Amino acid sequence: MVSMRADGLLRLGTTARVSVAGAESTVAVGLSRLGHRVRWVGRVGRDEPGELVLRTLRAEEVDVSRVREDDDAPTGIVLFEQRLPDVTRVQYYRAGSAGSRLAPADVTTAIEAGTRLVHLSGITPALSPTAREAVTAACDHAAEHDVAVCLDVNFRSRLWSADEAADVLTPLARRARVVVGSPDELALVGGVEDLLRHGVAEVVTKHGAEGAAVTTENGTLDAPAHRVPVVDSVGAGDAFTAGYLSGWLDGVGLAERLDRGTACGAFAVATRGDWEGLPTRAELDLVGSAGTALR
Amino acid sequence: MVSMRADGLLRLGTTARVSVAGAESTVAVGLSRLGHRVRWVGRVGRDEPGELVLRTLRAEEVDVSRVREDDDAPTGIVLFEQRLPDVTRVQYYRAGSAGSRLAPADVTTAIEAGTRLVHLSGITPALSPTAREAVTAACDHAAEHDVAVCLDVNFRSRLWSADEAADVLTPLARRARVVVGSPDELALVGGVEDLLRHGVAEVVTKHGAEGAAVTTENGTLDAPAHRVPVVDSVGAGDAFTAGYLSGWLDGVGLAERLDRGTACGAFAVATRGDWEGLPTRAELDLVGSAGTALR
Amino acid sequence: MVSMRADGLLRLGTTARVSVAGAESTVAVGLSRLGHRVRWVGRVGRDEPGELVLRTLRAEEVDVSRVREDDDAPTGIVLFEQRLPDVTRVQYYRAGSAGSRLAPADVTTAIEAGTRLVHLSGITPALSPTAREAVTAACDHAAEHDVAVCLDVNFRSRLWSADEAADVLTPLARRARVVVGSPDELALVGGVEDLLRHGVAEVVTKHGAEGAAVTTENGTLDAPAHRVPVVDSVGAGDAFTAGYLSGWLDGVGLAERLDRGTACGAFAVATRGDWEGLPTRAELDLVGSAGTALR
Amino acid sequence: MVSMRADGLLRLGTTARVSVAGAESTVAVGLSRLGHRVRWVGRVGRDEPGELVLRTLRAEEVDVSRVREDDDAPTGIVLFEQRLPDVTRVQYYRAGSAGSRLAPADVTTAIEAGTRLVHLSGITPALSPTAREAVTAACDHAAEHDVAVCLDVNFRSRLWSADEAADVLTPLARRARVVVGSPDELALVGGVEDLLRHGVAEVVTKHGAEGAAVTTENGTLDAPAHRVPVVDSVGAGDAFTAGYLSGWLDGVGLAERLDRGTACGAFAVATRGDWEGLPTRAELDLVGSAGTALR
Amino acid sequence: MVSMRADGLLRLGTTARVSVAGAESTVAVGLSRLGHRVRWVGRVGRDEPGELVLRTLRAEEVDVSRVREDDDAPTGIVLFEQRLPDVTRVQYYRAGSAGSRLAPADVTTAIEAGTRLVHLSGITPALSPTAREAVTAACDHAAEHDVAVCLDVNFRSRLWSADEAADVLTPLARRARVVVGSPDELALVGGVEDLLRHGVAEVVTKHGAEGAAVTTENGTLDAPAHRVPVVDSVGAGDAFTAGYLSGWLDGVGLAERLDRGTACGAFAVATRGDWEGLPTRAELDLVGSAGTALR
Amino acid sequence: MVSMRADGLLRLGTTARVSVAGAESTVAVGLSRLGHRVRWVGRVGRDEPGELVLRTLRAEEVDVSRVREDDDAPTGIVLFEQRLPDVTRVQYYRAGSAGSRLAPADVTTAIEAGTRLVHLSGITPALSPTAREAVTAACDHAAEHDVAVCLDVNFRSRLWSADEAADVLTPLARRARVVVGSPDELALVGGVEDLLRHGVAEVVTKHGAEGAAVTTENGTLDAPAHRVPVVDSVGAGDAFTAGYLSGWLDGVGLAERLDRGTACGAFAVATRGDWEGLPTRAELDLVGSAGTALR
Repeated sequence: MVSMRADGLLRLGTTARVSVAGAESTVAVGLSRLGHRVRWVGRVGRDEPGELVLRTLRAEEVDVSRVREDDDAPTGIVLFEQRLPDVTRVQYYRAGSAGSRLAPADVTTAIEAGTRLVHLSGITPALSPTAREAVTAACDHAAEHDVAVCLDVNFRSRLWSADEAADVLTPLARRARVVVGSPDELALVGGVEDLLRHGVAEVVTKHGAEGAAVTTENGTLDAPAHRVPVVDSVGAGDAFTAGYLSGWLDGVGLAERLDRGTACGAFAVATRGDWEGLPTRAELDLVGSAGTALR
Repeated sequence: MVSMRADGLLRLGTTARVSVAGAESTVAVGLSRLGHRVRWVGRVGRDEPGELVLRTLRAEEVDVSRVREDDDAPTGIVLFEQRLPDVTRVQYYRAGSAGSRLAPADVTTAIEAGTRLVHLSGITPALSPTAREAVTAACDHAAEHDVAVCLDVNFRSRLWSADEAADVLTPLARRARVVVGSPDELALVGGVEDLLRHGVAEVVTKHGAEGAAVTTENGTLDAPAHRVPVVDSVGAGDAFTAGYLSGWLDGVGLAERLDRGTACGAFAVATRGDWEGLPTRAELDLVGSAGTALR
Repeated sequence: MVSMRADGLLRLGTTARVSVAGAESTVAVGLSRLGHRVRWVGRVGRDEPGELVLRTLRAEEVDVSRVREDDDAPTGIVLFEQRLPDVTRVQYYRAGSAGSRLAPADVTTAIEAGTRLVHLSGITPALSPTAREAVTAACDHAAEHDVAVCLDVNFRSRLWSADEAADVLTPLARRARVVVGSPDELALVGGVEDLLRHGVAEVVTKHGAEGAAVTTENGTLDAPAHRVPVVDSVGAGDAFTAGYLSGWLDGVGLAERLDRGTACGAFAVATRGDWEGLPTRAELDLVGSAGTALR
Repeated sequence: MVSMRADGLLRLGTTARVSVAGAESTVAVGLSRLGHRVRWVGRVGRDEPGELVLRTLRAEEVDVSRVREDDDAPTGIVLFEQRLPDVTRVQYYRAGSAGSRLAPADVTTAIEAGTRLVHLSGITPALSPTAREAVTAACDHAAEHDVAVCLDVNFRSRLWSADEAADVLTPLARRARVVVGSPDELALVGGVEDLLRHGVAEVVTKHGAEGAAVTTENGTLDAPAHRVPVVDSVGAGDAFTAGYLSGWLDGVGLAERLDRGTACGAFAVATRGDWEGLPTRAELDLVGSAGTALR
Repeated sequence: MVSMRADGLLRLGTTARVSVAGAESTVAVGLSRLGHRVRWVGRVGRDEPGELVLRTLRAEEVDVSRVREDDDAPTGIVLFEQRLPDVTRVQYYRAGSAGSRLAPADVTTAIEAGTRLVHLSGITPALSPTAREAVTAACDHAAEHDVAVCLDVNFRSRLWSADEAADVLTPLARRARVVVGSPDELALVGGVEDLLRHGVAEVVTKHGAEGAAVTTENGTLDAPAHRVPVVDSVGAGDAFTAGYLSGWLDGVGLAERLDRGTACGAFAVATRGDWEGLPTRAELDLVGSAGTALR
Repeated sequence: MVSMRADGLLRLGTTARVSVAGAESTVAVGLSRLGHRVRWVGRVGRDEPGELVLRTLRAEEVDVSRVREDDDAPTGIVLFEQRLPDVTRVQYYRAGSAGSRLAPADVTTAIEAGTRLVHLSGITPALSPTAREAVTAACDHAAEHDVAVCLDVNFRSRLWSADEAADVLTPLARRARVVVGSPDELALVGGVEDLLRHGVAEVVTKHGAEGAAVTTENGTLDAPAHRVPVVDSVGAGDAFTAGYLSGWLDGVGLAERLDRGTACGAFAVATRGDWEGLPTRAELDLVGSAGTALR
């Protein structure tokens, strides 16, 4: 999906910056910058916005060899307008877009020998019935190959109702190894306790500017956010997820997973754009650790 | 409809300028700047892009009191990329847009006592079945109130096939007092001779950089285009139509109608944007008359 | 009046943004965005800067049908340079401008049946003797038609001395239903108590970042300002006035008038430009109420 | 004087570039870049636009030690809008400006031992009575010290009528060693023949894109203009004058004077801004000589 | 190498656009866009400019797996200033840069089974003794594996003298299958006839805006350039080479090779940047064939 | 030296602003704006970046008559990238630059009758052996003419090691009347006490956002920094030094020297660029005194 970020107010006429947006692609870039091998699976239109998505991901060393270019549907657009420093308006042009036409066959080629983790966003099943099927297929496929699944709940009220989302996302969440969300989002899929009971190993709660926490059967570990000047908070949640999963892939402890997540979130918040400012591994230390506390 | 005009190449990431686009709105601005009282009828979303359309038209003294703001559909978008100085790529995000939901009830309040002309574009009926009905309703309504109709054929191959367009537009064209189009477009609706035979009074042929011509039962009058540096040719055809119709409304002769049309086209070509550079009446003389020749 | 807002320091050469400025026009836009019917009365030059003023106000649905376009004088200019984040330099080019040629005949056509409020700024009488007469004429005219007057003292030391301003503005203030000003400005026109004694119903004190207060014969009501990031504080006072008067026009209580005022001020402070970021009624809630306290 | 060059159309709201403008300052920069020692005499306001003028001229090694900074009047402004590629609108804000308050005492300190040439523009006497006196005083002063005078007629219809200009400029022209102007401007001051008869040694006719010519008692020498892409023609006449006078100061032949003038004009036309692109001596060869032809 | 392209004149202070430059990288991008598999071999610094080079090439699907990131030397910079529309100043910051430290070991891993062509630029051996050895090593390596070599003479007088260049480049040229250059450059390496005599199969002469020609033992085939508006001619020669070599790789006839070359050159000339506007295969037809003529 | 300040992240491609940088030139501009007569001595290349340095300093009334323009080496470049709001990356292109070729003969003409102070930066001796000699020569020369020396330690780890720096800078520091540095830098040259013991009259410690202190044989005086929004902290240390030395030149007390220094630092921090926002004497009061406290 391509983003158009207005520099001023849309109603006045303005300029906009054209870039790439999307929860999964932000996570993919974040992981790649931290040195992991990542593949992004999705559909774009066979058009110039689609080329922007592909060029950007390739630039970031994200494997796009499984991306399908749709001849019959355009790459989706999202329009951002910062109405006030802390109020961003979002308008989607995804109806009928290539991304909304994602189908099971698009995802089942994604897993290869060596794949250890499939990351899913709760946005995708909101896009269309076939996209919903694709997400389920990805879960099935991961299960068959014994690959862990991470689900970021990412509830978007502009795309579907809370009830619809709960119906679709709860079963998906229960099948995941890691579930990530805000307190509200986690409540939507049954709550932390319920998820643990259904076998989720790590439930990660994002508290935004307050930090994050992870709950396992051994209890909850909290980590405060890093204090950085807020330049642009869009994408910070996905950046956090990337950092957390990077720790997961490296097999570091829970505290360090959270810490890497909050560091990535800090980079996202302190730079313009969703993914543009995500850190390389060498840069991680540029924001200091804010410490963790066992609850 | 809102336009996003990329400053560079989309695939590279770039900035874009957000403005208003649309064949009818360009004609409306053109006529208003020339001093005519104009009303624009259409639908926009109740969103910030929609506000941009309304603010712009109000600024230009175009009456928008009959515009419907749709709560359930977004304002459409068109993406422009100038690939080469003379090759512009166009990508529409109009599927399901407010504009595509235009319906007969939206247009039949538009004509009031004193209305002398209804201008229609051949783009509108390509947007949706209800939009098609709306255009027919506008024609019917004009006929009832004895108001002249102008149809600009404006065939857009990205929206429908030539066959579909011919089926829909030919009957509309035959009911018009003035029909405007390129040679290809006029052929699509039966050709100049056929249109005259069906009662069209003036068939206006746009030859782009070569100029324009008008054919009536008395023969054909040609006018060369003004020679100006080409800055941005998008919108030049609509600008020409505005100038021509301004002459029609003023009751000047055919030669002067063409001349006003080519002057407006010259302004559109020599300035950035579709409608931004259209002339006021006082400015018309800033490009000299290129003369007309009886064929 | 047209504003040129330098992006950098003028002495270094820089770019500037051309927009519309003026205390009354900011109040007019503010009220219009909040849904009130507003007419702006004034003079602009018959030139392109004047067209910018007219286009902008029309876009904002402010009635400009009574504006006079002066053939013999240019539209005034104000140059802004942000020397430090909290120090803005202002330089006027209004000597001999169209606005300074405002005369009684320009304003006396402004009041119609249904007009409930005339808003005056203390800047206008500082521009020229005829402008001073025009303001007095507006007051007389309002009195004749039993229309309330609001005066915002708006003392500008670059335009006249405090003594001159006091002589001219005090009698005007005493005739007003609502007087708005900073503590210093209110002292200039006799002080809160004196104004109430002369029959002013509501004296509104603007305390900038500290909030605002209104004093009536029943006492004083305070309202703190909303806490928002300061992007550009120019125009915040006029934004406050627009919000306050919106409450007045709606007949809501004093606390709500203040609250609407501080909300509008918050929008002005948190967005670039004088009037560009003013809220619509639907947007008012985007900044939370900061509460009011009876003194 | 400070220029504001709009990037788009003023009526639409736009950005502008703030720079320095003025016929004499362009000539001064042109001569300095070509290696001559130059002093500019004039008045600016003691304000930031005035600082821009001074900083710019100092940067260009033009001596500003005799410039007076006026405490009581602002630096003048000129607003440029490129309406069409070959139509630029100009609006002055010079009424009451520092520059218009130039007085004889400002100029009579300018000539020192070693001064060989005083260059005057016909714009200055149009600004005010004292400016007119200052120009006359400069002529007198030059005569006393046996310093040659060059007058560029520079008739500006926005500032005064042709009749007024003729009355004032003709006597000045007759006292000059070199007079420069377009054919129309030279006619205004009596015509080429008349000027020669009154003792002018060189009458230089600027034909714009067609080139230039110089007439002396020995006849007329023509030089075509260099063919370069037209980027911005404002300031080209003054650039030509600078080049011509550089040749005069170097004592080269008439053909070479013209050639240097047309080279400087070519640089001005092929770059943005009035003076920004003027050539250094080393750069002169970057545009080839277009040759000269004896008439 | 990273380019800084000044938007204005450097001496005035200006902004610049940071991008990627380099003869070989432009050819690599050109070939990749046309659908060929391409690997770029070189050195960049382990710094952010180096990352820009790598990200850009990866985005364009150019294989950078063999690029060496140098810990001890920065990525080189080239500064471009467009002094006049047709005069661009170039200033290099390559002394001691990573690129200048290219060494034989960097290039000899580049050729794999399936490699059909090695493209060399005459710039590389001008950078340093080790770079010179690297180029020779590449030739040797190609010869061993029976891979064709193309040499673009690309003489840069800022880097070395014509004599030095002739000494180094002539033996390299004689070993190539294809040699490309302007008439002057080809003369530097012995001339067309001499090259053919030494076994070069195709000598391609670039005539800039006039077109190009290829000479084989069968004679010379000319192709005119496409007529397009000149936006930025930097990189056009490399674009031509990419198109020509694309034809070579596809095994099409000489006329079509030239035609593809001139088409690519036209794209480069008609868009900003060295490589940014190069065509995909699907876009090639956007500029019409200008035909070829047998001499 | 010319600076390129990236607007975004270099690895993404971005725009950059071209300006002038350098510790000594910032101090020179700062002193000149405060009304002192200043000469800057150094070398630039005979190229357009060098012209930018000269034009800028001349504009700021800094005497550049002793600057040497080197025909054989380019003007150095420094690349700035703001990675995070408080993390700026710096990359130098100074190897072989004109500035690094500074030699004793360049500086010994700098001191004239009336010269009261020579300001040296610890960066210069890090550039090359000849530059090191030049700094020593400047010290010798100052001693001969009984001119005070100020050394700002300015240790740059990208240019040399702490050990090398200590070896070179300590003897220089001991010869100075005023030494300025951060606590770490002062420790590098022996520490405050040691410097006083060796005859340094004033040792000034810069504590960044915490303020500054001066130690003499009479004890230490502290001054807090002014609180201003941080826009760009690059150059703040040099700005402080300029303010401090301005007080020294005026012969005001130590407290006022510190206060002027922190005021200048505040201006530097609150505006973009190294030197662009430095205050004139009239502007100093725009930031209030933050007071001083005797320790």
